[in-house]
Amino acid sequence: MRALEVHHIGHAVLDLDAAVARYETLLGATCEHREVVPEQGVEAASMLVGGDRIELLAALGEDTPVGRFLAKRGQGMHHIAYRVDGIEQALADAAAAGYELIDETPRIGLFGLRVAFIHPESADGVLVELVEPSRNGAEHG
Amino acid sequence: MRALEVHHIGHAVLDLDAAVARYETLLGATCEHREVVPEQGVEAASMLVGGDRIELLAALGEDTPVGRFLAKRGQGMHHIAYRVDGIEQALADAAAAGYELIDETPRIGLFGLRVAFIHPESADGVLVELVEPSRNGAEHG
Repeated sequence: MRALEVHHIGHAVLDLDAAVARYETLLGATCEHREVVPEQGVEAASMLVGGDRIELLAALGEDTPVGRFLAKRGQGMHHIAYRVDGIEQALADAAAAGYELIDETPRIGLFGLRVAFIHPESADGVLVELVEPSRNGAEHG
Repeated sequence: MRALEVHHIGHAVLDLDAAVARYETLLGATCEHREVVPEQGVEAASMLVGGDRIELLAALGEDTPVGRFLAKRGQGMHHIAYRVDGIEQALADAAAAGYELIDETPRIGLFGLRVAFIHPESADGVLVELVEPSRNGAEHG
């Protein structure tokens, strides 16, 4: 597989409003998108730092993926997402190389992107997300 | 303060050779630099994914910053580094805005860069590094 670039860094936070404000004041970041996704149990804000992107993730409840992460690990970096062309082939390549897939096939992630996750046990403790922007022009998800 | 971009993502690992190989096979990454820094207790490898950079960090012993991180948290993302122009002013701005500085003044980090860290308690659980490439042309540190 060849990842083209880092698409975003995921950062799990307890208070989304406060975290957005801190990225603005500490780094001069700007908020690109923000949305509530009840079916994923998350409210997310995409922050831009120059051409780079931090995805802030706040849990909508304790029994959600981000809620369980926060309870276990506390606030902090949650995943690294890489942009790929041809996400199906990238997943097949990863599986063939012995990586454990969380998503066998791509699904629609935040902000409408096609995404799939690779298990952190396969990747030196980092949850890896593969992202392929959808063909309708959405750049983030 | 205005951060210009993400300079790199720090990733603490147990086995540097294995992690370099996994970044190469999983992501098609290439190794830009690698060095042992005894005074910081670390061996580091800078991996390029397109124009983005992941800094792999392995501890030279248990009683080192990365060794203590690994013992407490396990392998995973360790810090986010942002590139700034004028790191002294950036630190002054951060302190004035209430952020807790680990380094009151810049110091020389890995690969020869001028760096300073901000405490994760100030930044929603993420250890933040500010990086100013040195004027001799080094791009990474």
